[in-house]
Amino acid sequence: MDAFHIKKAMEYKGLIDVLMGGNGYADIVLRGGNVINVLTREVYVADVAIKGKYILMVGDAEELIGEDTILLDMKGKYISPGFIDSHMHFESSMLTISEFSRLSIPSGTTTLIADPHEIGNALGPIGIRAMAEEASIVPNHVHLVVPALTPDCPSLETAGYDITSKDMEEILNYPNVIGIGELQGFSNAKHVYTHSPEIITDLVASTMYGRSIGKIVDGNAPELFGRELAAHIIAAGGRCSCHETTTKEECVEKLRQGVYVFMREGSTQKNMAECIRAVTEEGLDSRRCILATDDMVAEDLEKLGHMNEIVRRTIAQGVDPIEAIQMVTINPATYFGLEDRGCLAPAKLADIAVISDLNHMVVEGVFLEGKLAAFQGKLLLDIPKYTYPDAVKQSVKRKPLSEEALYIQGDGTKAVVRCIELIPDQNLSECLEVEVNVQKGIVQPDLGKDILYIACVERYGRNGNIGKAFVKGFGLKSGAFAESVAHDTHNIIVVGTNIKDMVAAVNHVIQMGGGIAVAKNGRIIHDLRLPVGGLITDELTAHEVSERIAALERTVKNELGGKVHAPFMHLSFLALSTSPKWKITDKGLIDVNRFQVLPPVKQ
Amino acid sequence: MDAFHIKKAMEYKGLIDVLMGGNGYADIVLRGGNVINVLTREVYVADVAIKGKYILMVGDAEELIGEDTILLDMKGKYISPGFIDSHMHFESSMLTISEFSRLSIPSGTTTLIADPHEIGNALGPIGIRAMAEEASIVPNHVHLVVPALTPDCPSLETAGYDITSKDMEEILNYPNVIGIGELQGFSNAKHVYTHSPEIITDLVASTMYGRSIGKIVDGNAPELFGRELAAHIIAAGGRCSCHETTTKEECVEKLRQGVYVFMREGSTQKNMAECIRAVTEEGLDSRRCILATDDMVAEDLEKLGHMNEIVRRTIAQGVDPIEAIQMVTINPATYFGLEDRGCLAPAKLADIAVISDLNHMVVEGVFLEGKLAAFQGKLLLDIPKYTYPDAVKQSVKRKPLSEEALYIQGDGTKAVVRCIELIPDQNLSECLEVEVNVQKGIVQPDLGKDILYIACVERYGRNGNIGKAFVKGFGLKSGAFAESVAHDTHNIIVVGTNIKDMVAAVNHVIQMGGGIAVAKNGRIIHDLRLPVGGLITDELTAHEVSERIAALERTVKNELGGKVHAPFMHLSFLALSTSPKWKITDKGLIDVNRFQVLPPVKQ
Repeated sequence: MDAFHIKKAMEYKGLIDVLMGGNGYADIVLRGGNVINVLTREVYVADVAIKGKYILMVGDAEELIGEDTILLDMKGKYISPGFIDSHMHFESSMLTISEFSRLSIPSGTTTLIADPHEIGNALGPIGIRAMAEEASIVPNHVHLVVPALTPDCPSLETAGYDITSKDMEEILNYPNVIGIGELQGFSNAKHVYTHSPEIITDLVASTMYGRSIGKIVDGNAPELFGRELAAHIIAAGGRCSCHETTTKEECVEKLRQGVYVFMREGSTQKNMAECIRAVTEEGLDSRRCILATDDMVAEDLEKLGHMNEIVRRTIAQGVDPIEAIQMVTINPATYFGLEDRGCLAPAKLADIAVISDLNHMVVEGVFLEGKLAAFQGKLLLDIPKYTYPDAVKQSVKRKPLSEEALYIQGDGTKAVVRCIELIPDQNLSECLEVEVNVQKGIVQPDLGKDILYIACVERYGRNGNIGKAFVKGFGLKSGAFAESVAHDTHNIIVVGTNIKDMVAAVNHVIQMGGGIAVAKNGRIIHDLRLPVGGLITDELTAHEVSERIAALERTVKNELGGKVHAPFMHLSFLALSTSPKWKITDKGLIDVNRFQVLPPVKQ
Repeated sequence: MDAFHIKKAMEYKGLIDVLMGGNGYADIVLRGGNVINVLTREVYVADVAIKGKYILMVGDAEELIGEDTILLDMKGKYISPGFIDSHMHFESSMLTISEFSRLSIPSGTTTLIADPHEIGNALGPIGIRAMAEEASIVPNHVHLVVPALTPDCPSLETAGYDITSKDMEEILNYPNVIGIGELQGFSNAKHVYTHSPEIITDLVASTMYGRSIGKIVDGNAPELFGRELAAHIIAAGGRCSCHETTTKEECVEKLRQGVYVFMREGSTQKNMAECIRAVTEEGLDSRRCILATDDMVAEDLEKLGHMNEIVRRTIAQGVDPIEAIQMVTINPATYFGLEDRGCLAPAKLADIAVISDLNHMVVEGVFLEGKLAAFQGKLLLDIPKYTYPDAVKQSVKRKPLSEEALYIQGDGTKAVVRCIELIPDQNLSECLEVEVNVQKGIVQPDLGKDILYIACVERYGRNGNIGKAFVKGFGLKSGAFAESVAHDTHNIIVVGTNIKDMVAAVNHVIQMGGGIAVAKNGRIIHDLRLPVGGLITDELTAHEVSERIAALERTVKNELGGKVHAPFMHLSFLALSTSPKWKITDKGLIDVNRFQVLPPVKQ
């Protein structure tokens, strides 16, 4: 028996002593609240007795009340297990785990399952390890599911580190790691099987190793049906989730095939309202329906809340409140094998959300392991500012660019070029071929038609690649902006009206060691440092980050004439080589469906 | 990665190859049946494609059909995952695992979770190991949950071996062992806490060790509520089952507290109809409701069926058939962490029951790991007769008894004696004090009032104890019968009208090395050898066993005048020192509620 279980045995024996009248009383009794029972799908009045970190019992706790027991009157309140976000990336918020937790704990979230996929691409095991270490320090429960493959498409892009099955023994055994994260590398099943079957063999080796040591494996199966979905499920070891399900039909099919559907509802993608129709319209058993955010930006977290807000929206779709709460408590706890939480019952951790308005999911108080952690939106625990080690702050190893490096060569005066077309609020893109001018052997953008330059600059010092193409949809009239957030390999991506500003922006990002830069007329007019892996800041609070992002977005709109909202997020997804149709990586313009690099100028 | 997972990785890669059109076709396609989806609680028409041991996919399998694919038309049939019996003791059937499986496979049961509690009491680890080895050979899936404590009440009885937490490292790591079985030692929570608190400390150590290596822990919490139930749940490590829940109220309470309720419906105890009211009347979420048999006798298995019959009865209580089937498929698979089965989905084992009449649960065909194992009630697989090693056939180490050993001494001509009163069809007993005659210093039975002798004779050569008392309820007019089946320590229990026949019966059981013997007028008139641990025969088929038991029961009725049906089963439970009120062990008459040994003659 390991030390953890010896300690637990002693704690449990202490609980039994109290219950059997042998020694002591409850520390806290929440009296007479409406207990939300996610096991039976009921609400009834009962006490919840707490001792140390644990729930002693739920029922009539009269005999467990001693002189020193703290009694809290819960009449009229709803007592719920704390909420679980089952799939999220801290990197999307640009916040440290500590900063994210400050905002999410008061909203009732007590457990976060994070996929450090972004920092894994940028830094490999050292980045994942650094995040695992921060996860050990925060007072809420943060577990990691780690990438089995970086980059997603080894032949089409360059990451900071190539994670394969050989790394699994190390990273799956870091503290707080409970499994393998999204199998994005096999989400495009048919193309991967055709073009990179070795990826599948390697993924299966990773997932089987994970299973052999009792870890879970998340899938990622957007738009997969039938045979391809079956192959994906098998590659994940026969039991997986999908957080990229977008239609009712897809949700029905996945639930039928045993996939746990993480109905996504975050700052960027909002799929819950469509997915939940599998339950509200088709009446399917919802035990494998789970809510998750995937990506949350600091501003939403601050203004709207976290899982309480997602539950509120789910209730608004006509789902019974208790069934909706099951989707952030017992359902994910069952999926992840987190048997010490997810419901209010003896021996479970006393992670509790006290709700004052059930339909609107107003969270009044939050207990974490038996301690009052937040009240009326205010954090009562001390979460110190966390500073990452220098080792994870040196992810940008590229020398500055010259302008020549971004030139796209052309002959004559006209050229037909390949242009990615941005689709607002989607990861997907369209593809376009347009004719533009060529001047002095350099292919030109066409601001009148909103045809801009886009480039992706390898930043890890591995090969110096620069992928170049054209993009439509940003609407810039001058300047350029660049960022070291570029899914999923996180090279430096830049969009611009001219090469001089693009180079200025990229070189500023390099000089900052990662971040966002906006350039106009050859100089930097706004920036944000993201020193941790080029993705996260450990220098600012959540509030400061959200204000800075808002200000940067205003700069793009007001100074450069940008017309798309959230321009940095949109740009960052134009590098995502797993989502159709055309994307850009350091290797060039990617035809996602053909698994191919295309030249920017049509021959 | 261990060898098991390397093999699995290769198998899975082979399945992916078929699905992606890379290599091969399905071996078997079950075409156009009504697929029972226990994940979504739906029935719809679909194909089930099988490759090797696994389900390839469920849906339209047209493209997976090659020249050599076997097509089976399933139009009008219902295709269900194979059934799981979640709690049972092979010992109750007196059959080997092989013999039991012969009968249970054709009824659709593909997985059995057996608690070798009886052989564990008789033989300790060597008995459990022998059963684990037989479990490895049979074609169905047999998993064991092992006792953490033998005997149940160490201070009140003698078992063949004292299992404690020190044995856990060994026996929890035997092949096919998935957890710790029923925590009977802590089912009588208040009394155990008061009289033997050291049992709790030891049980918690065992359950925590089990948890630390990923094993499940079954509870056993009859009539426990509130604080005592909470203490029991905590002793089991915070997650447990109970298969001794007998009322709706108790079922509601346990489901609310997170206990998986195994609604028992076997040959002896029938609790499902009462428990299921928590679902049918109270509308509770049934995801933690599970069906189990606990004890099945060969005759019922042969004549009625197995889990299909239990499901049929559950449907008859007004439960939707698919919800009832969930209770023998996905619900137990989830509880036990058997992720490779319990539903029809890609990568699951192709353990399938083909049902021709859903409401009556008529099972037409059974697949085990992709092979047709039974058709129309006939087993198609070869299950050879299994012979146990000699080591487990030497459990009876006692020398023959003399008549003096059974004398109950008394003074004068009258004595007030303590008498156990049998309650037909229950484990529980009543207690009675009656006046009887004393002749020549020996207290006498009173056949007119049905006051008979009862004794329990330690049979393991450990201390030679003999517990003696009186019993009412059998109605014998002459003779005696004895058996080496006496829950849970399985010493030799004997009931009789006179000491001479009792001694003859006991000595015959000793001489057979275990079994059942009926004596009249000083000689043995009928017997059954149970050489394996004194509990099981590996010499007879199931049919022969059930005929022999029926014949023995007729002998008791016709030759001795017995009036209770199933007299051997009733006698065997009179030694069960965990169920109130009075029982008999080798240490004497037990007052279960007071945790005390009482003399048979009142002073």
